[in-house]
Amino acid sequence: MERKTISNAVIKRLPRYYRYLGELLESGVERISSNDLSRRMKVTASQIRQDLNNFGGFGQQGYGYNVKFLYEEIGKILGVNQRHNMIIIGAGNLGQAIANYGNFEKRGFLVKAMFDINQELIGKYFGGVLVLDMKEMECFVKSHDIQIAALAIPKQKAEEIAHKLAECGVKGLWNFAHTDLNLEENVMVENVHLSESLMRLSYRIAQSEQT
Amino acid sequence: MERKTISNAVIKRLPRYYRYLGELLESGVERISSNDLSRRMKVTASQIRQDLNNFGGFGQQGYGYNVKFLYEEIGKILGVNQRHNMIIIGAGNLGQAIANYGNFEKRGFLVKAMFDINQELIGKYFGGVLVLDMKEMECFVKSHDIQIAALAIPKQKAEEIAHKLAECGVKGLWNFAHTDLNLEENVMVENVHLSESLMRLSYRIAQSEQT
Repeated sequence: MERKTISNAVIKRLPRYYRYLGELLESGVERISSNDLSRRMKVTASQIRQDLNNFGGFGQQGYGYNVKFLYEEIGKILGVNQRHNMIIIGAGNLGQAIANYGNFEKRGFLVKAMFDINQELIGKYFGGVLVLDMKEMECFVKSHDIQIAALAIPKQKAEEIAHKLAECGVKGLWNFAHTDLNLEENVMVENVHLSESLMRLSYRIAQSEQT
Repeated sequence: MERKTISNAVIKRLPRYYRYLGELLESGVERISSNDLSRRMKVTASQIRQDLNNFGGFGQQGYGYNVKFLYEEIGKILGVNQRHNMIIIGAGNLGQAIANYGNFEKRGFLVKAMFDINQELIGKYFGGVLVLDMKEMECFVKSHDIQIAALAIPKQKAEEIAHKLAECGVKGLWNFAHTDLNLEENVMVENVHLSESLMRLSYRIAQSEQT
């Protein structure tokens, strides 16, 4: 391993760099200094230099960063230069919203199928994605090289299904279920707890009203 | 102000305490020690004691925490003991998913209306929530005491609409648009950048495969 261990804080910021660089690319900007990037992203130039130094640093003193190169390198670090096959567990409203979102496809996340136990949903398409019977999940995961599963199911079912998915070889779970998953298996979990995000907002509103 | 300033890290953890305490309450647990809570939540008992000390501490040495009291106190801190009137901007798939989710209602977040410019959506109901014309947004916000707006719209429109909402007196924006909002106004922003969350997952999958 050549790379040093990178702190979680830096990793949390990387997708944001990736987004800003993508926007610069789209608007035809070829080079950008850490100062300019700093003004746009509202973080200090020294933080930008420090963060990007974690990956060997891509800047040349006095010339700024090559936007396309930096964008692609961060893309590689994030693993979005590769295709990821994905499924969605749960074809209710949230599952449908994820299927319809579409924005993930251009980052290489391809939704291959959705799964549900509801007979009225099985056989339908949402955002071009077919809903299959949950019974077929294990077989499908193995035969379609599925790396990521989005869990858009009630919390009561989440852990059981997560274990099954891990056993079938899924590498990452994108967990929208309102619970923490305790898995022994070597599978990465990224939680999107929407209610908790909303509570943080309400906390900050309450605080701002006190001052 | 009696309360000390509370670090962001603690605030990030509070909704998780609230969730666990809510589950304990539902299953009839009346008291819990920091050690037991620690085992369930997979954080150290000393962190739990430290975190809860920020709010004066609710535990009694040797007796553990009173679950109901702690749940309610954290609820007050988070501001979820009050009703928050909310609207959703954008009645596309994501907006519909938020409206249908329903889980927010029991935490006191009441979705009063959705807004869109698409004539085919206006007049329809999703999860019991009516879609109104965007033209009516400003008037509605003022007359219905709306505190929170969820932004489920494309990034190109987000900042303009965010400014309008802030001018009408909205206190918090729950931002699903794939952009950072730069607002001068005194309005809180909580971002839910789904693509970035997915990229963090893909990063961790890539890392786990290298080791």
